[in-house]
Amino acid sequence: MSDWLDTVKWDAQGLVPAIAQDAATGEILMVAWMNRAALEETGRTLRSVYWSRSRNKLWRKGEESGHVQIVSEIRLDCDNDVVLLKIEQLGGIACHTGRRSCFFQKLEDGRWVTTSPVLKNPEEIYRK
Amino acid sequence: MSDWLDTVKWDAQGLVPAIAQDAATGEILMVAWMNRAALEETGRTLRSVYWSRSRNKLWRKGEESGHVQIVSEIRLDCDNDVVLLKIEQLGGIACHTGRRSCFFQKLEDGRWVTTSPVLKNPEEIYRK
Repeated sequence: MSDWLDTVKWDAQGLVPAIAQDAATGEILMVAWMNRAALEETGRTLRSVYWSRSRNKLWRKGEESGHVQIVSEIRLDCDNDVVLLKIEQLGGIACHTGRRSCFFQKLEDGRWVTTSPVLKNPEEIYRK
Repeated sequence: MSDWLDTVKWDAQGLVPAIAQDAATGEILMVAWMNRAALEETGRTLRSVYWSRSRNKLWRKGEESGHVQIVSEIRLDCDNDVVLLKIEQLGGIACHTGRRSCFFQKLEDGRWVTTSPVLKNPEEIYRK
């Protein structure tokens, strides 16, 4: 029953971008990458699982921070190469900087301006 | 005054993914790719310009279809490698299939189900 995974057009690295969108507000919280195993596990567990390109391993979102994403909907675009997750963000923080959303830089008069506050110090989020 | 373009982390192909989100409803309409020239022109004209990987040229969204995207906000994520555009979609159709959004395939019981109607026949949209 993995036909749905065969529909996805993985890129040369075996990845597709995945957007996490707040299911309630529509806010875009982050974009990360998925390989086949990540998407399979996301579909099975309804918790966001990504592929970390920097650490080169599966990244179960929230495994360190507790900021798990509960998935209510999985969508695929017309080209079958971008995934959209509608999620509930536990802890209210998706970004590793401690902000709600990763998209906190807004272009204003030719400069990137930070528009959102840090809700929690990253050092507190990623306690060893 | 192109410092803001230098902030962006272009990938090995000189591209970043760009999400087009309806500024009024929050609906995600499409994801396409931008190179530096595409993002520069988007910032200058406040009309979405992408890089077409299939045609290998700048793609001024709506140039054939009339479905221009009017940009009200440009955002960048924490890793500086994903762009988010808040837009108004002229004609109400972002997808080349004639649907409002490209994300019309929803996973249900292990199958991709089409959830949105074709609003206009693509053959009518892309008249020669």
